[in-house]
Amino acid sequence: MNTKTSSAPSSRTKVRRIAELANYEKESLYGIIDEAYFCHIAFSDGENTHCIPTACWRIENYLYIHGSNGGRLTKKLLTGAQTSIGITHIDGLVLARSAFSHTMNYRSAVIYGVFEEVKGNSEKMHALDSFMEKIAAGRKNEARPGNEKELAATSVLRISLEEAATKISNTHPSDKEEDIDLPVWAGVLPLKIRRETPLPYENKNIPTPEYVKNWANA
Amino acid sequence: MNTKTSSAPSSRTKVRRIAELANYEKESLYGIIDEAYFCHIAFSDGENTHCIPTACWRIENYLYIHGSNGGRLTKKLLTGAQTSIGITHIDGLVLARSAFSHTMNYRSAVIYGVFEEVKGNSEKMHALDSFMEKIAAGRKNEARPGNEKELAATSVLRISLEEAATKISNTHPSDKEEDIDLPVWAGVLPLKIRRETPLPYENKNIPTPEYVKNWANA
Repeated sequence: MNTKTSSAPSSRTKVRRIAELANYEKESLYGIIDEAYFCHIAFSDGENTHCIPTACWRIENYLYIHGSNGGRLTKKLLTGAQTSIGITHIDGLVLARSAFSHTMNYRSAVIYGVFEEVKGNSEKMHALDSFMEKIAAGRKNEARPGNEKELAATSVLRISLEEAATKISNTHPSDKEEDIDLPVWAGVLPLKIRRETPLPYENKNIPTPEYVKNWANA
Repeated sequence: MNTKTSSAPSSRTKVRRIAELANYEKESLYGIIDEAYFCHIAFSDGENTHCIPTACWRIENYLYIHGSNGGRLTKKLLTGAQTSIGITHIDGLVLARSAFSHTMNYRSAVIYGVFEEVKGNSEKMHALDSFMEKIAAGRKNEARPGNEKELAATSVLRISLEEAATKISNTHPSDKEEDIDLPVWAGVLPLKIRRETPLPYENKNIPTPEYVKNWANA
């Protein structure tokens, strides 16, 4: 697998706007996906274009989603609709001395392609186990596993990460020469997704798992 | 303005999946937008469907975005492309006793419509001032304002919030009757966007503004 793609894998993944922030390396893409619990999926149903959020996770070079068999999103995606998937993390507001030089720090990924169905019970279970592992390492050995009926009612879909681009902005304020000495505070107001104190629910004599004890980082 | 719409404003905003979580009230929609610094915009350019992140803010019943005149996104949106916009906040991972009852807490909004251009320098400045006010209240009176050249190089677009739906999940674990007594820890692992300590950049004798002093809530 080529993990050092320095050019856009296709015309539609070529970043045009502030192109020097573009990055086509797999490490950046994987990092952005692995930190995300959800993505937004854009697709057309022939009549309308939609932008629908759904949970996601990654195994190797594929992004996975799941849903009820009866769900509109998974049904539409399985018709072979071309999709585009957006995942964005915001890291801060960049306050420059001039209004128009304000910007944001962020990491975003856009993926293009077509979803395929993950078939076969063991393949589906493997994929769903990976999702559980992402949510809480080790929990797949504790929670009651899905039975055949639950598995049959669930669709698992995946899309290749071959055609994707990331854009990363991690900067301090950058003002024009003539604005640098203006008496205006400049700096970054950082934002970060934090894990807050777990909220146990009706646990009678059940020891707290390590992944719960270690959850909060606030 | 009707702020209490209890039914879907259109067929395409009607939430099908777990419909009891759907909410068509303006207060929910406004709250989700006002907490967000960016959105994902889905649109088709006739050839491909795209899902592009961009900064956003709200004034009354419109969502605003801005961009360079030369930018692909704003140019495409101004061709009258039907768009769908997704904004999602994740609030926690909900760990149930059975694997298939795991879920997430979130607040999401999906908006449908067509963008229009905000024309006229005073209208554009008013919109951009509102964006600055969202980022840092009062800063529009401190930062060097945009000049005519900067303003002319910037497109401001807005889309009506009339056709939108929100979906909000704020729940504790919910297991099937037969799973409730399983010896598996249940609860919520909360996630929250936190404001971290500001990072000043080359401020010589410039007093720290109140909105910077009050930024961090960690």
